[in-house]
Amino acid sequence: MADSAAIDFTVRPIGRVESPLTSTADAPRQGDEGAPEAYLILDPVVQAGLNGLAVGDEIIVLSWLHEADRSTLTVRPRGDLSRPEQGVFSTRAPSRPNPIGMHRVRILGIDGPRLHVSGVEAIDGTPIVDLKPVLGRIEER
Amino acid sequence: MADSAAIDFTVRPIGRVESPLTSTADAPRQGDEGAPEAYLILDPVVQAGLNGLAVGDEIIVLSWLHEADRSTLTVRPRGDLSRPEQGVFSTRAPSRPNPIGMHRVRILGIDGPRLHVSGVEAIDGTPIVDLKPVLGRIEER
Repeated sequence: MADSAAIDFTVRPIGRVESPLTSTADAPRQGDEGAPEAYLILDPVVQAGLNGLAVGDEIIVLSWLHEADRSTLTVRPRGDLSRPEQGVFSTRAPSRPNPIGMHRVRILGIDGPRLHVSGVEAIDGTPIVDLKPVLGRIEER
Repeated sequence: MADSAAIDFTVRPIGRVESPLTSTADAPRQGDEGAPEAYLILDPVVQAGLNGLAVGDEIIVLSWLHEADRSTLTVRPRGDLSRPEQGVFSTRAPSRPNPIGMHRVRILGIDGPRLHVSGVEAIDGTPIVDLKPVLGRIEER
């Protein structure tokens, strides 16, 4: 393994989510469960990284769920007290050692470093750490 | 936006990849392009987080691609010099501001905190930062 001491493990936000959702209590569990449209406000210094993205594209947004509890290892899925506790790595619960959120969205509009996207369950102000294209079939890469 | 100064943006590795791939030059571009089977060696302190994962499950492994260049914003996709430069966020290139790798794998075996998985294109020693289940249809959640 590489010398961990030499690796920079600090996440540097590249932007933030702008959304009508302001509280995790109001947020749907997943983006396809009624989450509102939102804007991804990217830092102008990373704008060159957006070249090649187009309206209609599906992308994966990685966020940093800053309100999560990083000491949590087991949860009741979807907050349902009738369900048994499960390990966080078998769920999409936000609380986990590294609270990285993964959101699949469609780009509805692009205005410079500002992307209008379909439903995201992250709340207003959530830091964005990465964007990745959804991979097509091998032949399309 | 939350007070960024108060947020802990440090990624804490939860384990590492054990793989016969030892150099990024040898690694396939994607896990479904001939990557070898590998082991995910999780830290015993997070083992409770694995409860609920089973052999046969498909999961998303998030890694920290520690050899990536974090200042890169544009690349030629798949290293092909005949293709025009694109923004990193429209590609899966490892070099990007936050070098989080996303790998979809199937669990082939579980032995305590050691998961045997199908093809991963990450090299031996790559830090693992999160595991998430692949989401089924809404009705199955």
